[in-house]
Amino acid sequence: MKKVLMLICALCVVASGTFFVANAQEEMTPEELAASAVSFRKALFRTIYFNLRPIGAMAQGAPFDAEVAQRNANRIAVIASMIPEVFAENTSEFSMIETTALPTIWENMEDFESKAQALIDNANAFSEAASTGDFNQAMGAFRAFGGSCGNCHDTYRVDEDE
Amino acid sequence: MKKVLMLICALCVVASGTFFVANAQEEMTPEELAASAVSFRKALFRTIYFNLRPIGAMAQGAPFDAEVAQRNANRIAVIASMIPEVFAENTSEFSMIETTALPTIWENMEDFESKAQALIDNANAFSEAASTGDFNQAMGAFRAFGGSCGNCHDTYRVDEDE
Repeated sequence: MKKVLMLICALCVVASGTFFVANAQEEMTPEELAASAVSFRKALFRTIYFNLRPIGAMAQGAPFDAEVAQRNANRIAVIASMIPEVFAENTSEFSMIETTALPTIWENMEDFESKAQALIDNANAFSEAASTGDFNQAMGAFRAFGGSCGNCHDTYRVDEDE
Repeated sequence: MKKVLMLICALCVVASGTFFVANAQEEMTPEELAASAVSFRKALFRTIYFNLRPIGAMAQGAPFDAEVAQRNANRIAVIASMIPEVFAENTSEFSMIETTALPTIWENMEDFESKAQALIDNANAFSEAASTGDFNQAMGAFRAFGGSCGNCHDTYRVDEDE
């Protein structure tokens, strides 16, 4: 968060017509850059999970709230659009950084990106299905949506249950 | 991420007409719940920062990309809408959990929420300004947007520079 403030300060400097700001990123070592990239990834998926959790609870028997389901699915579609960006940095050579992302991601980026797009499409379809207020219709779309999470995890994520 | 799979599995159980799934959240201790809430918060702000960073770089002299600026500002507005939700859990009594969120947040939730709304409004205004493609107009709106970050940090966040 400190860096955000640095940027804001930097902006003030720019606004005042003087420009002399070091780029924090340029000062990072390759390992620090990789650790930062992994941290962004984890933050992204945790934020997706934050929105997925209430929908999962509805699937488990919590009262169906079409508005929350639709809103959270929309959010997930927006956040999922960042997936290719947070995986732009190939971190596979930094084995000391804890991650469940498999190196095959960077060997198959096109396929990886198309799986991310499938997640976005299914999140949007689920949002639309939820907007009808019909639980069964929404849950049908949720199955497809959940499938697109698993589809990518099966191929590109360390299987933690093994 | 394991929990996401649990939810998906739970959904399959629901879909097959059988319902018997423990709610993971109900099994957590108050401290675990608080730690989870803090973790969601940190993930959220890191994801905001991921989108803010390229805009900050533009303010520092990187080439102005109106499309990226507009897109990221839209994302920030969407993600910022979750701020009141990730602060719904009052974690101030768990002093062993590392956080920069000040306890005064939960004593002034109305003010805190209005500051979050100001951030959303300013992110949307910045997105609109960026869409004009005019750098100066965009940066003017970015200043207001950055101000609404600082406005909340000044009041409700531990000052790490002290």
